[in-house]
Amino acid sequence: MATIQDVARLANVSVSSVSNVLNGRTERLNPATFERVREAIRTLGFRPSQVARQLKTGQTPMLGLLVPSTANPMYGQLTLKIEAEAQRQTGYRVLLGNTNRDREQESRMFDDLLSFGVHGVIVVSSLTGEQHFEVATRQGLAMVSYDGGADPDAPARIDHVAPDNFQAGYLAASHLLELGHRRIAFVMPAGRTVSRASKIAGFQAAVKEAGLGDAVVIECSPAAHYGDAELAELGQALAGQLAQTSTRPTGLVAVNDMMAIGLMSGLHQAGLSVPADVSVIGMDDISMCLYTNPALTSVAMPFGEMAQAMVRRVMLRLAQPDEAPIRLCFPSGLVVRQSTAKPPAANRLAGAGAPKRG
Amino acid sequence: MATIQDVARLANVSVSSVSNVLNGRTERLNPATFERVREAIRTLGFRPSQVARQLKTGQTPMLGLLVPSTANPMYGQLTLKIEAEAQRQTGYRVLLGNTNRDREQESRMFDDLLSFGVHGVIVVSSLTGEQHFEVATRQGLAMVSYDGGADPDAPARIDHVAPDNFQAGYLAASHLLELGHRRIAFVMPAGRTVSRASKIAGFQAAVKEAGLGDAVVIECSPAAHYGDAELAELGQALAGQLAQTSTRPTGLVAVNDMMAIGLMSGLHQAGLSVPADVSVIGMDDISMCLYTNPALTSVAMPFGEMAQAMVRRVMLRLAQPDEAPIRLCFPSGLVVRQSTAKPPAANRLAGAGAPKRG
Repeated sequence: MATIQDVARLANVSVSSVSNVLNGRTERLNPATFERVREAIRTLGFRPSQVARQLKTGQTPMLGLLVPSTANPMYGQLTLKIEAEAQRQTGYRVLLGNTNRDREQESRMFDDLLSFGVHGVIVVSSLTGEQHFEVATRQGLAMVSYDGGADPDAPARIDHVAPDNFQAGYLAASHLLELGHRRIAFVMPAGRTVSRASKIAGFQAAVKEAGLGDAVVIECSPAAHYGDAELAELGQALAGQLAQTSTRPTGLVAVNDMMAIGLMSGLHQAGLSVPADVSVIGMDDISMCLYTNPALTSVAMPFGEMAQAMVRRVMLRLAQPDEAPIRLCFPSGLVVRQSTAKPPAANRLAGAGAPKRG
Repeated sequence: MATIQDVARLANVSVSSVSNVLNGRTERLNPATFERVREAIRTLGFRPSQVARQLKTGQTPMLGLLVPSTANPMYGQLTLKIEAEAQRQTGYRVLLGNTNRDREQESRMFDDLLSFGVHGVIVVSSLTGEQHFEVATRQGLAMVSYDGGADPDAPARIDHVAPDNFQAGYLAASHLLELGHRRIAFVMPAGRTVSRASKIAGFQAAVKEAGLGDAVVIECSPAAHYGDAELAELGQALAGQLAQTSTRPTGLVAVNDMMAIGLMSGLHQAGLSVPADVSVIGMDDISMCLYTNPALTSVAMPFGEMAQAMVRRVMLRLAQPDEAPIRLCFPSGLVVRQSTAKPPAANRLAGAGAPKRG
């Protein structure tokens, strides 16, 4: 690769003249010299090194991005959108870390970012604790956290961007209740994260409004790891168990689409039909929802807008580190497809709660 | 963030003493001084900068990774495995670029990698032409190409890693032929890439062996972009058209799982059953195959082993740039699930080719 020395030699000028051209200090430069330097840069395909520039400015034009796993289609989609936004808004590149929601791996990535001179990071995680995030921000990282917990008393300057998870739970439950379901459940892996708690609260609110008492929340075993389609696997296993109980719910709201897809698969394998026997709703509205059989009703989250906001916010925080932290909440919306319908007739009569009138 | 100067001040030693500790040159250092420096490093949470280290060595401990789109589950899975291997083998981090298979975006990413001092790159693409890859290697990139075209006469030192695509096509077609299908087709989007051509050749070889004349290859319209589940969309639309033709194939081999999932969705929407009316096979064996309805028969590619080989090879090429280029081909294997069965009885009798005897 050509160096600044090569350019100077070919243009027959000093290295500092080349440096002046590169940095736009051309006012005192002879126009002929200027042209010779530009010509030499073109001829040699010379590119000024970001490394040198970075030592001067202390800024590397990169953002860190931590996601649990790009193998999960929802995180793969979010990764795509965040990277595209970083390119579009600032030309920054993305340094990716799959962290499997592991605190240790997240901390190690923060360390590496700092040692690379990368000062902006977007963290997609939803662990309840963010203590290690706070440590990293004190060490100089400008951070935006997706769907994480915002402790109002936390001293750290971390922005939060999230979909309206309460609304998502509320919309999903309301849809089933309006179809006439009276025995519905919210399904998730063990472990209450901030976003899961909000989804349950929204679900619960709709159930209470319908006069049905306490909502049913089914916690599967915890996911062993986050490398793959483990939520689908949990959903599939759970559906097999539910299929054998006579009092099973007629409508299931899954914490996300992967789990919903697993539930549908397990129900089918057990000889039940979706939605004739059991209705299923997912959350996230990943592209796959269009191609499942039946197509999956889901609660859509505006990933494009959220990606845009996360990149904009982390860039702002890089420029103004003392900016007060904010929490941005984006509306979610129900997308009705073929996986939800009225409950089976027997259940409509023998439902746990009587439909309200008037 | 603490600097080397801060450490020297707190430990009350010279900067060069701190540097000696950091670089393991401790033989001439007073043990008490050594301890003071270590204590100061701990107290301040000091981390030596990769940026400075990189200026000395000319190497940044990062690999570039170009994929069409992480939103496609297969690329999301490969991204996860490559990043994990880079961490495991060398502690290198991954700089990610989604390129939508766009030559311009790929070239721009190569430029950025070079300006960051990143010299190793893995390119997941399958365009037929690799001229811009050759330009990038001449400018100093050590490159491994996944599933790309290896032109034996090309001067560039690029290693190629790919699954055995010929075998994949052959295995898929043979499975359908053994089940008794006589009217089968290979389905893909328009545009023959190197890997698609190999899959078709394998498919064709099995069909010829069965004495069935020329294989049927259905090319859909080209995919408009690679941001999302566009292959599933193409498959879904095509299935709708096929459903209306009386001479439609009884068995379909899709170029990959996303397209197979789209085909199944379109067939179901048209009122046909998989596999009772039409058998469908995908390729890649992404996790989703376990959760489709019915579960998708697919040809598995060993992504973990291929990721391992790609990282190992790019590291070797970084160390020994003049190493002769190689092509590594990994065996693929059929995974039979519920989307394939015998053809409908009518088609078994009225099939286009008579089954061979003896």
